[in-house]
Amino acid sequence: MAGLPTLAVVGATGAVGTVMCELLTGRRNVWGEIRLLASERSAGRKVRCRGEELTVQVLTEEALDGVDVAMFDVPDEVAAHWAPIAVSRGAIVVDNSGAFRMDPDVPLVVPEINPEQLRNRPRGIVANANCTTLAMIVAVAPLHRQYGLRELVLASYQAVSGAGQGGADALHDQLAKVAGDRLLGSRTGDVRQAVGDDLGPFPAPLALNVVPWAGSLADGGWSSEEMKMRNESRKILGLPDLKVSATCVRVPVVTGHSVAVHAVFATEIDADGARGVLRNAPGVIVVDDPAAGEFPMPIDAVGTDPSWVGRIRRAVDDPRALDFFVTGDNLRKGAALNTAQIAELLAKTLTHP
Amino acid sequence: MAGLPTLAVVGATGAVGTVMCELLTGRRNVWGEIRLLASERSAGRKVRCRGEELTVQVLTEEALDGVDVAMFDVPDEVAAHWAPIAVSRGAIVVDNSGAFRMDPDVPLVVPEINPEQLRNRPRGIVANANCTTLAMIVAVAPLHRQYGLRELVLASYQAVSGAGQGGADALHDQLAKVAGDRLLGSRTGDVRQAVGDDLGPFPAPLALNVVPWAGSLADGGWSSEEMKMRNESRKILGLPDLKVSATCVRVPVVTGHSVAVHAVFATEIDADGARGVLRNAPGVIVVDDPAAGEFPMPIDAVGTDPSWVGRIRRAVDDPRALDFFVTGDNLRKGAALNTAQIAELLAKTLTHP
Ligand SMILES: NC(=O)c1ccc[n+]([C@@H]2O[C@H](COP(=O)([O-])OP(=O)(O)OC[C@H]3O[C@@H](n4cnc5c(N)ncnc54)[C@H](OP(=O)(O)O)[C@@H]3O)[C@@H](O)[C@H]2O)c1
Ligand SMILES: NC(=O)c1ccc[n+]([C@@H]2O[C@H](COP(=O)([O-])OP(=O)(O)OC[C@H]3O[C@@H](n4cnc5c(N)ncnc54)[C@H](OP(=O)(O)O)[C@@H]3O)[C@@H](O)[C@H]2O)c1
Repeated sequence: MAGLPTLAVVGATGAVGTVMCELLTGRRNVWGEIRLLASERSAGRKVRCRGEELTVQVLTEEALDGVDVAMFDVPDEVAAHWAPIAVSRGAIVVDNSGAFRMDPDVPLVVPEINPEQLRNRPRGIVANANCTTLAMIVAVAPLHRQYGLRELVLASYQAVSGAGQGGADALHDQLAKVAGDRLLGSRTGDVRQAVGDDLGPFPAPLALNVVPWAGSLADGGWSSEEMKMRNESRKILGLPDLKVSATCVRVPVVTGHSVAVHAVFATEIDADGARGVLRNAPGVIVVDDPAAGEFPMPIDAVGTDPSWVGRIRRAVDDPRALDFFVTGDNLRKGAALNTAQIAELLAKTLTHP
Repeated sequence: MAGLPTLAVVGATGAVGTVMCELLTGRRNVWGEIRLLASERSAGRKVRCRGEELTVQVLTEEALDGVDVAMFDVPDEVAAHWAPIAVSRGAIVVDNSGAFRMDPDVPLVVPEINPEQLRNRPRGIVANANCTTLAMIVAVAPLHRQYGLRELVLASYQAVSGAGQGGADALHDQLAKVAGDRLLGSRTGDVRQAVGDDLGPFPAPLALNVVPWAGSLADGGWSSEEMKMRNESRKILGLPDLKVSATCVRVPVVTGHSVAVHAVFATEIDADGARGVLRNAPGVIVVDDPAAGEFPMPIDAVGTDPSWVGRIRRAVDDPRALDFFVTGDNLRKGAALNTAQIAELLAKTLTHP
């Protein structure tokens, strides 16, 4: 593997990092050395990746030496601190966190949509979009190209693993507590009491519940997650005036973010035409036969690469509006896969002679 | 109780009927005799209602004799057949099914919104709105009165008990099967296999999943439930040209339907003004302090009367649009409570001298 670039996976032990190691095992190899980094908590842990048993090392300046591409799958504040250090040590950073996405000097790249933005990276950092935005934007972009997007109204159904491994653990713990009590969730059984105080990373129980909140409080009562969907959609599509209203809701699903999309276009649109566009779109699979029970659902999309799109129908009262439902694996296209795709494009330009 | 009208609860043993019996126990009594009716399957069963132990009788023509008001909490086809028979025997019918809602000779009544429609009932039948519509319309109507509604974009998070007792049973059965297996819902655990073939009234597993489908297939790929939200909203609000796009999604919640609402008005709207209108609206409780973890959620709304409204915010990109989230108990305001309110208004006009 001499001549192939060196890859670091920073945060290799987290929800995204774990899927990244699996993905790297299955994809065509473009990497020389792969280095797995995390905090002191996980140092020394053995992880299988690309058929090799690798030892997780602590993220230090020295551990970044000689790295060509560093994927960052760590919390925002860790990425904000360490990504510039990795760049100063000679790496190109592909960051999965929210730390740099809206930085005008950092491209926000979805390879199916705007790969050309990769070349324009003055800070040496490329950002990966938020997982909820990614699931949806892969389907919205080709429709925009055909019909001219004017407005998006979005409602999400977000999986708990979107809040990291701690989110998935919390839901499993809660389900173990509520299962078997057939009164819970009805007027005679109190879910809050059954779940207790250990809510994991969430503000309320997720078992037998939906929680209309993700992220932190932004201006005007919006959540940071909702503002990400708006701002990242605008940046990825290059539409600074796009109207976007999103409602982000956490649901008791382990993996797989879904979004109900109402998209308004500049021209009239029909469902068959839209279906045709989506069938030809990279990274999209159309699953749209409700009479046969075929629509996008998290239990089917989990572990797969594409965005599943279905329930495609023209608005009854507006010939320029289309409604559809999208589900994508938040840990794959929503995170690790998109990062891997970006990193592989970079690797092509880096392979040493 | 001589002189007070006789009430029949048809379908007294179902999900809605059971809640109806409880409600009748707690509300101010306006009824003389209460008669509980169901199919032969439940005949002879004892049910406590209003402090009395009542015996469920089979629904027959004779069982309807002398009934002043008959609440119908039975499937559509049973209501379609039996409601006219009840009318012919002298009863006024308040029907919870979908059989008569769009009949121009049947008023669709929400007492907080259009009680005056009660007087106009040429067929002797009054219809109760669909549970998803009800949760949302109680909040939308007062905003419409103030700001002039032009368009609704809706996405629902519907509880399994909306599909009757069989729906609630199915989710509990499924949760018992998936709880404890921490791989399920991730890429390494197959929920379909764990749940097996017994899906209850749903087209796919609900445990650890969301299912973007409710009802049957209507024109253009829309579901019947989505068309109900559109058509019933228009009828209740008296707005035959209202633009409505709804996406109806079933979620693993036992009771409590939620709706993410994007409402566009004729005039500019601000969140504080809207909050003021909603605080004064009958049947609404405003729960809107995200920083304190206060937003509407099924586990809190279950067993309560009002529609819980929160996440109230003006659209960032449209001063005439408001986004908010509503949760209501589908078995109470979504069904039994609204029916009881209507029936009590009718009882006032019926009390024998
Ligand atoms: N989950 C998703 O669906 C998703 C989707 C898109 C983007 N993202 C973003 O991806 C990033 C990772 O998310 P996740 O869900 O994988 O989180 P996670 O499960 O909590 O994992 C966090 C990872 O970061 C490492 N880490 C934490 N603090 C560190 C430090 N000071 N130095 C070095 N490593 C440190 C952890 O290592 P230890 O094992 O040593 O603690 C772990 O490997 C976040 O920015 C998240 O917003 C997540
Ligand atoms: N669940 C909700 O959230 C909700 C909300 C609004 C409206 N609705 C509507 O309310 C109605 C009842 O719903 P549900 O959820 O309570 O359903 P459910 O739990 O399935 O109960 C159905 C009831 O109808 C009775 N029934 C069925 N066939 C009958 C027949 N041939 N003759 C007499 N009784 C018969 C059943 O009696 P047995 O015990 O004898 O079978 C049972 O009492 C439906 O039209 C539904 O669409 C439901």
